[in-house]
Amino acid sequence: MPTVELHVLSGYNPQEKQRLGDALTKAVRFVVPAAPELVTVLIHDMPAQDYYRGGVSRKPALARRDPEEIVRTFLGEMADRSLDRAQQHLSPEFTMQFPGTQPMSGLQELIEWAAPRYRYVAKTYEGFDAMQGPGDAAIVYCRGTLSGEWPDGTAFEGIRFIDRFEIVDDLITRQEVWNDIAETRAKV
Amino acid sequence: MPTVELHVLSGYNPQEKQRLGDALTKAVRFVVPAAPELVTVLIHDMPAQDYYRGGVSRKPALARRDPEEIVRTFLGEMADRSLDRAQQHLSPEFTMQFPGTQPMSGLQELIEWAAPRYRYVAKTYEGFDAMQGPGDAAIVYCRGTLSGEWPDGTAFEGIRFIDRFEIVDDLITRQEVWNDIAETRAKV
Amino acid sequence: MPTVELHVLSGYNPQEKQRLGDALTKAVRFVVPAAPELVTVLIHDMPAQDYYRGGVSRKPALARRDPEEIVRTFLGEMADRSLDRAQQHLSPEFTMQFPGTQPMSGLQELIEWAAPRYRYVAKTYEGFDAMQGPGDAAIVYCRGTLSGEWPDGTAFEGIRFIDRFEIVDDLITRQEVWNDIAETRAKV
Amino acid sequence: MPTVELHVLSGYNPQEKQRLGDALTKAVRFVVPAAPELVTVLIHDMPAQDYYRGGVSRKPALARRDPEEIVRTFLGEMADRSLDRAQQHLSPEFTMQFPGTQPMSGLQELIEWAAPRYRYVAKTYEGFDAMQGPGDAAIVYCRGTLSGEWPDGTAFEGIRFIDRFEIVDDLITRQEVWNDIAETRAKV
Amino acid sequence: MPTVELHVLSGYNPQEKQRLGDALTKAVRFVVPAAPELVTVLIHDMPAQDYYRGGVSRKPALARRDPEEIVRTFLGEMADRSLDRAQQHLSPEFTMQFPGTQPMSGLQELIEWAAPRYRYVAKTYEGFDAMQGPGDAAIVYCRGTLSGEWPDGTAFEGIRFIDRFEIVDDLITRQEVWNDIAETRAKV
Amino acid sequence: MPTVELHVLSGYNPQEKQRLGDALTKAVRFVVPAAPELVTVLIHDMPAQDYYRGGVSRKPALARRDPEEIVRTFLGEMADRSLDRAQQHLSPEFTMQFPGTQPMSGLQELIEWAAPRYRYVAKTYEGFDAMQGPGDAAIVYCRGTLSGEWPDGTAFEGIRFIDRFEIVDDLITRQEVWNDIAETRAKV
Repeated sequence: MPTVELHVLSGYNPQEKQRLGDALTKAVRFVVPAAPELVTVLIHDMPAQDYYRGGVSRKPALARRDPEEIVRTFLGEMADRSLDRAQQHLSPEFTMQFPGTQPMSGLQELIEWAAPRYRYVAKTYEGFDAMQGPGDAAIVYCRGTLSGEWPDGTAFEGIRFIDRFEIVDDLITRQEVWNDIAETRAKV
Repeated sequence: MPTVELHVLSGYNPQEKQRLGDALTKAVRFVVPAAPELVTVLIHDMPAQDYYRGGVSRKPALARRDPEEIVRTFLGEMADRSLDRAQQHLSPEFTMQFPGTQPMSGLQELIEWAAPRYRYVAKTYEGFDAMQGPGDAAIVYCRGTLSGEWPDGTAFEGIRFIDRFEIVDDLITRQEVWNDIAETRAKV
Repeated sequence: MPTVELHVLSGYNPQEKQRLGDALTKAVRFVVPAAPELVTVLIHDMPAQDYYRGGVSRKPALARRDPEEIVRTFLGEMADRSLDRAQQHLSPEFTMQFPGTQPMSGLQELIEWAAPRYRYVAKTYEGFDAMQGPGDAAIVYCRGTLSGEWPDGTAFEGIRFIDRFEIVDDLITRQEVWNDIAETRAKV
Repeated sequence: MPTVELHVLSGYNPQEKQRLGDALTKAVRFVVPAAPELVTVLIHDMPAQDYYRGGVSRKPALARRDPEEIVRTFLGEMADRSLDRAQQHLSPEFTMQFPGTQPMSGLQELIEWAAPRYRYVAKTYEGFDAMQGPGDAAIVYCRGTLSGEWPDGTAFEGIRFIDRFEIVDDLITRQEVWNDIAETRAKV
Repeated sequence: MPTVELHVLSGYNPQEKQRLGDALTKAVRFVVPAAPELVTVLIHDMPAQDYYRGGVSRKPALARRDPEEIVRTFLGEMADRSLDRAQQHLSPEFTMQFPGTQPMSGLQELIEWAAPRYRYVAKTYEGFDAMQGPGDAAIVYCRGTLSGEWPDGTAFEGIRFIDRFEIVDDLITRQEVWNDIAETRAKV
Repeated sequence: MPTVELHVLSGYNPQEKQRLGDALTKAVRFVVPAAPELVTVLIHDMPAQDYYRGGVSRKPALARRDPEEIVRTFLGEMADRSLDRAQQHLSPEFTMQFPGTQPMSGLQELIEWAAPRYRYVAKTYEGFDAMQGPGDAAIVYCRGTLSGEWPDGTAFEGIRFIDRFEIVDDLITRQEVWNDIAETRAKV
């Protein structure tokens, strides 16, 4: 029955603490095979006046936004072709890597590249995996199936895909995409 | 400067504690944007005689093996065609999903399916991502590029791939594979 | 100077915390012969948003009522013959064991059994002892002396008694009674 | 899922810690209706060099002996008429209170008082309850039934009894006894 | 990266906590050569209802006033010849030791003693050092240079001085003074 | 009854921990007027394998030597004219400030300056005060009286002195001296 105590400056809201509770529980269970209900997390919220480093009180850093939520929002806006809003989630260093082409960096570039490949495409999600990477980037995976229409108007569906995102400072710095579109087209 | 204290039964070795230290640090940084060197983890190792639940002392559960290490070992054995040894990492419920085919469950079946597709294939790793999932499974991602020879003997290389594994009780229960082989073949 | 820290969900009032402070101090002193003023108890009250089990925040259970208080109230109501109110402290499984008779389960049955034994009886308390038992029941002892009138109207007093109660979920499940009434009557 | 941390000087053995784990768990459950397996006790054993009061390191006090064990041993020795050994468990201030007589202070006195009352008597235990009292005394209750022979040689059994003991500094300072002997004799 | 947790009854204000944070950080660094920004202090403020000693809740003692501040105020009032106000910082047992004279105990006595030595004197502070002594007294050192006029009206400046104060219960019990006045006069 | 918990990497010996226990107790009492025996310090010694910063285990820094002990040793060696050994306690940046002269930096220079002032001088200590300063330097004060012989062979004694030392990295960087020698000589 591992018990985790986190001492952290006050200023995180219940949703952010819930994310901490969840992430710390998973961190323990990544190594210790305890049933989830045997892992307790206690968050000791320290008001600034109760927390000193080098004898100096400190301000809490704003929590990172939930990177999975950032990706879900971005993908939703891309699906709606709300490119302006989607763009706001992208870092100036953003690059994306789609199958069979060079890395791209602009959403408009992506739209143009995709145009001859399918009329439209929609994602059905099967699951997300999200974690902090070893550096500053959070990693988010999204997988599921694609449906849509080929350029000739025939429909497709059930084509497997997976996307990998890196998020730094609440902005997406990298998107990598793999899918079975070519596999499917080859069969067609 | 968040501080994490983990109270856990004695019995974990330094490597396992290192993994806990690393996972707990990442868990905090997934939400709190503190620089890594400002996240402290203290592991309070409790001898069985110092730990009671319901007034009863308890035995520590053996640590899970590092799931990334399990996947690396499995992939290495597959690359060496050490199918017997690779098989030992698989759960009886193991299934794998490769592009453009039905789910398979046996390694021999995989070998036969691959035979007409390429003479051999080798993986160059770009990176692994590993985390505990919401249930009992740990998730491991491995991505990089494939090189090898087509059935006609011509060489290929630099074909992007990504594998997703689920590991339960130190055994792989699921492997999903995406890659650009069809994309590349289509161009050839 | 043993120090006890209790981490518990917020929701207990000062009286309930006082009972925790008292019970934890006694628990330590049951084993460690420290003077009471050298035993410190710190209660760390955790708001629900700071407490996770299995990554899920929890609600605190309502505190048990003070079992000694339940017994004092019950005995006072019995002394006042407020049988309806006394009945409300009894579990449906309530049984009582008085000297020289079979176990009884109803208060009216008790009144009838006592009728030929004494006209009335009153308790003077010398002390209560209360503790949690090994199972779900709290145990309360009450001891002191009985005074009253024999059926023939002569008075008696100073007859030693002791009652033992078991309380589960704030209801009395069992009462056992020992006293020197027969000893005294034999002398008379 | 209340968690108790006890910081105490090193020097208690596993049996003593087990008693602490048990007593602290009961102390919590006396107020908080948590299932036993949801109460965790962590004992932080502090070597003398890690523990300071007033800037001065301290020596741990020897643990109290288990008062229930003291009573069991004493009662066993009394049953065996090993009066010398039984005597060693008694404080110089020891007094005992039996039904229908004055307080006594010596074991020989007790033997003589009992002689005309029964040829011998043996105790069958139904249960013990033990706790720290509000002062320095631990309280132990022992209850069950008596069997034996009346002075005329006829047998008796199943007579209810309860004993209450106070123990200070590992010595019994007080014994109080209640039972149904007079009740039973009156019927005979 | 040493971490200090202080559990203390609620009732100290942010300035008092800041002083605790500072003093605890220095205490660690007095022994452990950690950079200040690697020493974390967490103050766990315990409401009276969460803090028990001997099973009894306690009231927090009022914080001591900052002894350096007491000395600065006293010296300022002395400089202004506000003897009445300065007097209020002195314990009834106050004594002072100036160079080349007997201990004095009254401020008026000091003024008279100084009269033939200099017309006036002013202190320029170079630094204060303050700490808790081994007993109840806090120790404050103040050092710097003196400027003023000799009895004949010629000016002096840059004469080194150091004062040592003991403060008990927020009152100055002792002042000791050393300086280079005689050294300077000897040269003149 | 404030309680201090210090979490620190293993590697400090009992003397060093005693110094920590003492310094932390004083730090609390500098602000909170608790009797010393009501301040508890618990040192949680963390083996390197149980302590992570940024997910990386760390080595403990060697403890600073006791600065008061350094000063006592240095002063003893100076009294014995063991200049070579005394020199080893001095930082390359060492400076000293004696009454009525310029700052000096070498011990030989000091000896020469003192030669015409007194034949010899010995210190009788009244007390030491030591603390960590706000920067890297520890501060040590030493006060008491001087005895010795004037250049003409007449004896003196009871002359008050105080020395202030700064110690960085176990080396003395600064010594400041005040005393009543000139005051006394002026009277002679």
